[in-house]
Order: sequence, then structure tokens, then C-alpha cells
Amino acid sequence: MSKNKLKIFELLKAVRQEKPLVHHLTNWVTIYDCANVVKVFGASPIMAHAQEEVAQMSAISSALVLNIGTLTVDLVKAMKIAAKTANRKGIPVVLDCCGVGATELRDKSCFELLDDCRIDIIKGNSSEIARIAGEKVRTKGVDSSQVEVNLQRLAERLAKERNCTVVITGKEDVISDGRRIFLVKNGDPMMGHIVGTGCMAASVIGTFAAVEKDLCMAASAGLVCFEVAAELAKKKAKGPGTFKEQLFDCIYKLDEKTIAKMQKVYCVE
Amino acid sequence: MSKNKLKIFELLKAVRQEKPLVHHLTNWVTIYDCANVVKVFGASPIMAHAQEEVAQMSAISSALVLNIGTLTVDLVKAMKIAAKTANRKGIPVVLDCCGVGATELRDKSCFELLDDCRIDIIKGNSSEIARIAGEKVRTKGVDSSQVEVNLQRLAERLAKERNCTVVITGKEDVISDGRRIFLVKNGDPMMGHIVGTGCMAASVIGTFAAVEKDLCMAASAGLVCFEVAAELAKKKAKGPGTFKEQLFDCIYKLDEKTIAKMQKVYCVE
Amino acid sequence: MSKNKLKIFELLKAVRQEKPLVHHLTNWVTIYDCANVVKVFGASPIMAHAQEEVAQMSAISSALVLNIGTLTVDLVKAMKIAAKTANRKGIPVVLDCCGVGATELRDKSCFELLDDCRIDIIKGNSSEIARIAGEKVRTKGVDSSQVEVNLQRLAERLAKERNCTVVITGKEDVISDGRRIFLVKNGDPMMGHIVGTGCMAASVIGTFAAVEKDLCMAASAGLVCFEVAAELAKKKAKGPGTFKEQLFDCIYKLDEKTIAKMQKVYCVE
Repeated sequence: MSKNKLKIFELLKAVRQEKPLVHHLTNWVTIYDCANVVKVFGASPIMAHAQEEVAQMSAISSALVLNIGTLTVDLVKAMKIAAKTANRKGIPVVLDCCGVGATELRDKSCFELLDDCRIDIIKGNSSEIARIAGEKVRTKGVDSSQVEVNLQRLAERLAKERNCTVVITGKEDVISDGRRIFLVKNGDPMMGHIVGTGCMAASVIGTFAAVEKDLCMAASAGLVCFEVAAELAKKKAKGPGTFKEQLFDCIYKLDEKTIAKMQKVYCVE
Repeated sequence: MSKNKLKIFELLKAVRQEKPLVHHLTNWVTIYDCANVVKVFGASPIMAHAQEEVAQMSAISSALVLNIGTLTVDLVKAMKIAAKTANRKGIPVVLDCCGVGATELRDKSCFELLDDCRIDIIKGNSSEIARIAGEKVRTKGVDSSQVEVNLQRLAERLAKERNCTVVITGKEDVISDGRRIFLVKNGDPMMGHIVGTGCMAASVIGTFAAVEKDLCMAASAGLVCFEVAAELAKKKAKGPGTFKEQLFDCIYKLDEKTIAKMQKVYCVE
Repeated sequence: MSKNKLKIFELLKAVRQEKPLVHHLTNWVTIYDCANVVKVFGASPIMAHAQEEVAQMSAISSALVLNIGTLTVDLVKAMKIAAKTANRKGIPVVLDCCGVGATELRDKSCFELLDDCRIDIIKGNSSEIARIAGEKVRTKGVDSSQVEVNLQRLAERLAKERNCTVVITGKEDVISDGRRIFLVKNGDPMMGHIVGTGCMAASVIGTFAAVEKDLCMAASAGLVCFEVAAELAKKKAKGPGTFKEQLFDCIYKLDEKTIAKMQKVYCVE
């Protein structure tokens, strides 16, 4: 993975130089964190959800991030309008399947988005992705439940079926475009003790996808950067409150040497 | 209160072990803080407000927290659907009467919720609870105004009338189920210098009510834990910004010995 | 400017003593920060956007802050109701033209608010204000684009045309009521590396406008305080995450001596 090692920082540099506009239709819980993580990475977040303006916003953006965390019927309508514009313009669309499986509305909305629009990157924890892939799973709220399947095979299969890139986040992240499988083993358990790291991960993936056409590579590079920063933050933090502030500091200061030394990304096949 | 002393940590331990799902329909200002405080206490927050899914979310949850801080007519409709489901399922419903008395919409919505659904815990500052109890008070926005009544008698009376538990937060918190009155004298004035501590208190009460049927005990234990953490945070903070981060750190690290030593909860009758 | 030097702290003192209620209809990204900055300055924020209650909220407030960052058609309707009430009551209305120029909805909504209501203070970055003033500019999302006009002349002209106070934020803030032009040269580039400082600036301006009828003075004094705090915060911070917490700490602790020593406000004419 020596080539990937170099590429990770190259993509971070591209984010910082190109400052891509990343359009979000996301949830009301972590909307600030999603915007701020994009900003601290050096890009430009734009949050806009009115059906009357989402098409124009997506049209001037370089990536679109959708998150159904606090969805409503109207918000999903706006997501479809934005995604179709993104599709026409050829910019990548990330869907964070936050809480899918918990209610019929979430299931229905996710599948409608997947069927009506081109979703380039499907992102979720293991139970969410299993649900999307048609496995029998019971999701408990927005936190991941145990899933009794091989996650690498799951990601690969869904990526092939949906002709997209699939990201399963967890202790070990699995990223597949149906051909390759990347594993990202960075991160810290503290990420699971605060709200927002999952949503931020989707925003980071969208930010990197805005500057790199190989979406499997973009998603992996983004996650490595985000999770290396989390490892550094953990060392400086005294608990979940200070961890979060340190996380933003550490993202902001990420450099080539640190990433090269700490990155744990592996290409399975 | 030696028995209560032990019980407080027992309930905190139950929260951490059972990790109950706490469903919120809350306001857009402090929604992140409400979710995060539940998470940092070791439980699992779920924020969902679409009328199409709230019933299913409440049905898989162990407590429901309603907060009218940035209410709309549609949101109150969703609150009623969620509360009725919670009632049927027998899980506790907490209502934070945020800003009641300031507008007719807030008054009307609160009374509709109280009349149409079973609200197990009514929570507010002194002017909000006075308003709900029919006392003549003028609320100034969401901050507490001076109230010229005996708060212990007020809590007890409203609890009896509404057959529920009443929590009046303030320098000294008053908790009553109509039979008993508990006073919690922990906390720090710094809590009043940032936005969100009141809303977080309701979320904490909901979290503890999810693991303890004696709601008067649950609310008191939750407030003690939250406010002991605030006292610890104040010592480490340099101002309201660092106080908030320290608050999350201190909640996360709460242990039996600290709670036993610092708790100031008193049973009046 | 020795007179202005004294006046700045006098206004801060008035905010802390009068604790004015500042009503917001703002965006969902920075709504917490807007409320919290008002609180940490010593005033009382109230966020309420239901069309059924905004008139009553504005009627009991001392200033109204509107921000179109995540506008919808319904939210703009509520803004008009609130602004008209504020106009009748004679309290100042601040409009943060967040992202105007990016979509037709933003343009249309801003001009409707400006034409249908009396907006006392128009606030934006250079490209937003240029757009409102009819200059040809392309806004990229919510971040400022380069504008090829003399900002002092622009602020002065728009202030005269709209008979209001205009605030252009940037490395150097320009404030004009059409007669005078004030420049505020405080602040730190770190403010541009996190989300929310622009929105908070509008809330701060609203807070100071609540206690001072000379809106050009109020806006300048508010910005000096906010940006002096930012300079202090920058010195204590290690990055954008810790900067934000320090910013709230430093606002809270602002004193007369520090403001007198650090303020950089200049009256051009």
C-alpha cells in the first residue's frame, strides 16, 4: 500500500487547495458538526434543504451528502431533487443511511433514494448496510447492532448490486466498489462515546469524493485522515468533551508525515 | 438519605449497563447537546420527529423526552402521536415546558399535551411550572422569572393534580410526586451562563426514568449526577466555553465515590 | 476615537445589566452558537420560528435577528411576521444575508424582506452585500467571494439607498449608516476556519442594537468586543476546536481595560 500512503495526503492537499463546495441535506442533530468538519478539512460546506433551492445549490457544488438522521417526507423530496441534479452534473452523491431499519419511513426513504437516483457512495454502520443489502437485521435506533455476516463480502456484494461504492464504518471500516476491498483500521473507541462522528465521517467522505474520481480511494483516504486525527485527539483529551475539540484541532493540523506514519489502510484484493 | 446515596450510583450503573434508547422530539437549538448528554451518560439517544415514524421510534424506546423550545404546530402533532404510543407501551414521558407562558402557542400546546396524553414527568423552571399550575406569572423568553410562591408546595400540588412527577429546576431543584418532595442542591451558577443545561437536564431525567420505575427517585438521581458533574467541571473550566466540554468529560467519568461524597439530595417528607 | 473607546465598554456593560431578550429566526446549522453567544455576552436569546408565535415573541423582545442560512418558504413567511411586529414596536431588526446570490430563493427572500419590512441593519460578507446592492457578483455558497468594489463606498451607498445601517464583515469590517463609516480592524483569521463566526457576529450586533439606538455605534461596538475576544482566544487555542471554546470564555471575561487596549475601530468620516 505504499502508493496509497502517498495518495492519502495528496487528496488531503487537493481538498485544502481546491476547497470544494460540499452540499448537505442532513439531520438537525449533527448539522453543525457536519459543516464544521468540512470547513476544518479546508473545504466549504453548504447546508440547504428548501425544495426551491436545492437544485441550484447542488449545481454549483462538487459533492452532495445526504443523511436521513432526522428525515421528514418533505426533506426526502428535497433530497431527490438535489440528487437528480447532482446526477445530471456528474458530481458524487453520498447517502448516510442513518437509522435505516428502525422505522418503515427510513426504509422506504432509503430505497426510494437508491432506486430513483444514482447514489455513488452508500455509507452506514454494519446493521444499516446489512438492512440495505436485504439481510435480516434489527436496528436499535441509530447505534449499530451486531450483524452475523462477513462484512467484506457484504460490502462487495452490495457495491456490485447497486453499482456503487459501499462504506461500512466500525472498529474496522470496510470500503468496496465491488472490485476492490479496502480496510481502514484507524480510529479510537472514544469516537463511539460522542454523537456525531458517524455523520461527520459521511461528510468527510463527500469532501474527499469532491476531489477524486476513484470513490473507493476517496472514501478510504478521507476515513484514514479523520480517524488518524481521532487517534491523536484521544491522546490529548481527558474525556468525550475535550476529545471533540481536540478532534477538530487535530484534523486542522494533519500533515504528510503523521499520516504516513499512522495510516492503517489495507487493500484486501 | 444513606439509602438514596447508594441508589444514585446504582441507577447510573443501570443506565450504563442497559444503555436504554431515549427517544426525543426536542428543539433545534440544543438538539445536539440533548443527544450527546444521553450518549455520554452511556445510553442511546434517538432524535426523530416525522409524524410518519415517531410511533415506531417510541415503540422501540425506553423513555420519551418532549421539549417545546422551538415548537411548531406540526411538531406538537408528532409529539402527541409519540406520547400516545409511549403511554400504550408504558414507557415514561418527560415534558420540558421550555418557554411556556411566553406565547399562546406554547401555553396551548403544553396544555394539549398534558390533557391528551399521559405526561409522567413535567419539568420546567419556576416560572414555567407556575404557569402550568395556573399561577399568575409572566415568563420572559426561556429564562426563569422570579416567582412569588413556595416552590415545594407548588411542585407537590401540581404533581397531585396531574397525578405525575413534577421537577422544578433552579438553584435548588424541587422534585415531587405529590407524596414525597426531594431537593437537589448540587449544581453551579455557571450552568446558567450557557445555553442548553436546562434542556440537557430533561434528557438526563428521561435517561434515568428509562431504568427506574420510581420516577421521583429517577429524576432526583439524574439531576444529582448531572449537577455533581457540573460542579466538577466548573473547577476545571476557565469560562463557559471550557465549562461545557469539561461537563461532558466529568459526566463520562462519574464514579460511585465522587457521587457519594458530593451528592446533596434531601427528602423533605 | 477616544470617545468611542469608552462607549464600547459602556455598551457591553449595558448588555450585561439590561440582559435584553434577542429574538432569532435563524438557520439550523449555527442556531446553538447564535443563542450561546448572546447568552455568554450576558443577554437572553430566544429562538422561535412558528408563524403562530413569532409576533408575540418579537413583541416582548428588544431586538430581532433574521438569518437566511437554511431558509425555507415557510421560515421566510415567519420572518416577515416577526419583522413587521418588530417594526411596529420599534425594535431593531438585523438581517444576515447568509448565502444570498447563491440561489434565486435566497435573492427573492432577501429582497422581499428588505422591501416588505423595515430592516435596520443589513449584514453580510462583501459578496453578499454587493449582491444586495445590485453589483454583479457570483457567490460561492456561504463563503465570501472576491469583490472588485470599494467596500466603504458600497456600504455607504446601500445604507443611503435603504435608509439603514450596513455591516460588511471581513478582514476589516465596514459599518455605515450612510453618513458615517466605521472600520473595525480586530479579529483573527482563525474565525474563518470554523463555521459560525459570521452568524454569531449578526447575533452580537443584534444584542448591542438592543441597548443602543445609534445602530452604527452598536454594530461597531459589538463587533469590536466579539473580535477582541477572538484575538484573545486565538492566543490560547491550539486549533479551530479549542479556539471556539476559548472564544466563549474570552467573551465572558471581556473587561474595560482589555477592550480599551486592544480595540481597533476607526471613524473614516
